[in-house]
Amino acid sequence: MDNLHHVVIVGGGFGGLHAARQLRHAPVRVTLLDRRNFHLFQPLLYQVATGQLSPANIASPLRAILKRQANTQVLMAEVTSVDVAGKRVLFRDGSVGYDTLIVATGAGHHYFGHKDWEKYAPSLKTVEDATEIRRRILLAFETAEREPDSERRRARLTFVVVGGGPTGVELAGALGELAHHTLRREFRTIDPSSARILLVEGLERVLPTYPAKLSAKAAAALGRLGVTVRTGAVVTELGPESVAVCAGDVTERIGAHTILWAAGVQASHLAQSLARASGTPPDRAGRVVVRPDCSLPGHPEVFVIGDMANFNHQTGKPLPGVAQVAIQQGRHVARLVQHRLRGQSLPPFRYKDYGNMATIGRAAAVADLGWVRFSGYPAWLAWLFIHLLNLVEFQNRLLVLVQWAWNYFTRNRSARLVTGREPPPAVTVPAAPPLEGPHP
Amino acid sequence: MDNLHHVVIVGGGFGGLHAARQLRHAPVRVTLLDRRNFHLFQPLLYQVATGQLSPANIASPLRAILKRQANTQVLMAEVTSVDVAGKRVLFRDGSVGYDTLIVATGAGHHYFGHKDWEKYAPSLKTVEDATEIRRRILLAFETAEREPDSERRRARLTFVVVGGGPTGVELAGALGELAHHTLRREFRTIDPSSARILLVEGLERVLPTYPAKLSAKAAAALGRLGVTVRTGAVVTELGPESVAVCAGDVTERIGAHTILWAAGVQASHLAQSLARASGTPPDRAGRVVVRPDCSLPGHPEVFVIGDMANFNHQTGKPLPGVAQVAIQQGRHVARLVQHRLRGQSLPPFRYKDYGNMATIGRAAAVADLGWVRFSGYPAWLAWLFIHLLNLVEFQNRLLVLVQWAWNYFTRNRSARLVTGREPPPAVTVPAAPPLEGPHP
Repeated sequence: MDNLHHVVIVGGGFGGLHAARQLRHAPVRVTLLDRRNFHLFQPLLYQVATGQLSPANIASPLRAILKRQANTQVLMAEVTSVDVAGKRVLFRDGSVGYDTLIVATGAGHHYFGHKDWEKYAPSLKTVEDATEIRRRILLAFETAEREPDSERRRARLTFVVVGGGPTGVELAGALGELAHHTLRREFRTIDPSSARILLVEGLERVLPTYPAKLSAKAAAALGRLGVTVRTGAVVTELGPESVAVCAGDVTERIGAHTILWAAGVQASHLAQSLARASGTPPDRAGRVVVRPDCSLPGHPEVFVIGDMANFNHQTGKPLPGVAQVAIQQGRHVARLVQHRLRGQSLPPFRYKDYGNMATIGRAAAVADLGWVRFSGYPAWLAWLFIHLLNLVEFQNRLLVLVQWAWNYFTRNRSARLVTGREPPPAVTVPAAPPLEGPHP
Repeated sequence: MDNLHHVVIVGGGFGGLHAARQLRHAPVRVTLLDRRNFHLFQPLLYQVATGQLSPANIASPLRAILKRQANTQVLMAEVTSVDVAGKRVLFRDGSVGYDTLIVATGAGHHYFGHKDWEKYAPSLKTVEDATEIRRRILLAFETAEREPDSERRRARLTFVVVGGGPTGVELAGALGELAHHTLRREFRTIDPSSARILLVEGLERVLPTYPAKLSAKAAAALGRLGVTVRTGAVVTELGPESVAVCAGDVTERIGAHTILWAAGVQASHLAQSLARASGTPPDRAGRVVVRPDCSLPGHPEVFVIGDMANFNHQTGKPLPGVAQVAIQQGRHVARLVQHRLRGQSLPPFRYKDYGNMATIGRAAAVADLGWVRFSGYPAWLAWLFIHLLNLVEFQNRLLVLVQWAWNYFTRNRSARLVTGREPPPAVTVPAAPPLEGPHP
């Protein structure tokens, strides 16, 4: 076993996991490294952030997924860097050598040079991000219920989502539904449906990568859920309780207690050192520019796939940062490894685009499958079906289905928990005034 | 509405929630205060800690439960003290007056004067406790897989549960099943079933409040799951990586990475000030000694119920700290409030004991219903049925049922996530040696 070709995969997301699975019958030894013990189905993370699903419903332990794959070992470790010359992956407390390396550690958000904005406007990449956003959203309504000052109450009931791509649209839609339907009749002092939800997009329409007609449909669906769409607008200032939105010459300062970031994307930190090793600088989003076979220039034994790779050999532009690209690249490089071991070659990677969809609340979605574009109820059903099918474990499909069905018929959401070890809720939110005046 | 008799309930656990529900048609105004936004079904918390259920499956938003109860307002606030003379409940940032007060804030664990033990041996009371314990258990296996030193590996695969009551027995059983069945074949270096699981109980048998025969059955069932039961033994020292267990004259020092506390119970901090106001000192567990109608001595308008009350008028001993007691007391005091408003009285509270059950892994349990005692499969089915029935929301029943059925047939557990914002996993666990020696 130890003499076998050793494939090390860094990252158990869509790319890494599918690469590992593709190698299940290959005469290689596979080590899959991830700093988490689970694979996360990120496209549904916004539903965790808005209380529809539990984190475990969209996560599967990597060991459980790969336990029958005898040639593969899963190790939980945080990779700090790659020694490309010495063919070693380094952790904080050790290292592991490789014959072939597949790096698929994805991307995080970036704040256009405003690192300090992160604490006021969390973004949605990890399970912890999702439960933190859930906490902020729910606490906003809870503290508004106790807030006697009308202006402050207004700020607590104002939600700003920055970024009108799929994540921003889906988050804003789910927020709209929460305020208008789920929370209905649950409060005595405030009316949750009076919440103001603002979606801010820098370009001239939401879902800018979709056909213009679908963008319009999405904007209309958002409007029906009470979401105000502000296009051609950028955030110029961001603080704990307010945001400045600039459209053209007009800057509006909005008091908002909950600001969510769904804008810029930046490749994970490993990309930098890999790009350096390749002699080609990373692109503007920090991604590694890869060769037509997804390998690192100058290092055919190192592959970079998914969100952290800039693959521009097909259309001249980088492929989008979506699950399908990562999955197809993972499978491609795994097949290429097998071919190489047999002394064969493979044609360059080609992405087959099966289309894109985004959902906007209950029974509304837009779908662009290339050969056909549709929206509304049929798109929503297609979205449901495809997302259920792509969840990794059957049990999770069942659990998600139960919760979606429940949500559809009752508008209720079961996973509305304020959790976290942060200071106790409500009372520590900055300067929440007393309920009946301070006690003498 | 404002002239109505105002009932303030502190705590949305079993006692407080059932008191609130009992008052749904009463001509009173009800305010339910809780520092969390949800009711937690604590008897199943150990299943969250061992990866069988998600937190949301055993939690229900208090607002959702009570939204149709028009006379009731839910407020999220952390109560710091009660001004019994001024009839006010105080928060950190305000206060609220009451005509009748029902205090039901439960109990936490206590460490017999060793407050420093808490960080090494967490106990199981909150959702955060459960996910932290889950994290520690799963990380123990993860780091053992990477640990080259056999003694340190042994310590990582040693789990000590302190306390042989229902929580300790259920935790140890669930751990045994995790190690022997769920994790089977998932690791390549270690054998999870070689894990050593120790249950330490100070008295001479586990489940000491049950009939001796059922204790023996429980101990046998634990043995079948690979749990070593150490009775008549107490913990005398506790550190980050070891525990000293003393039985008679013999003290054994055990290297153990994961130590869980299920021993002492202490009433919540409000009990102290209430006991002081009543002129009767709290009992040894910090509980308020209440009158036969559950009221505070000298303050008929203040009731203390559930785990924080010492009610000893029925058997001469305090009633046990179980959900049934809290529920029945909650209903009793709510009925008493209604009777008093009509100028009527009620006979003193009487606890009707429907029995106790504890489960020990899959298809094994013990049940003591008073008139009948049984164990094994029938007890397990009864346990399943009763716990499902008592979950607050229908959706949660369905979600729990799906996961139990899944777990029963596959032994898999879906909610095995290592989460939390603590320092990144694996590599930061104290001094985990390198996988292949430090990189030069």
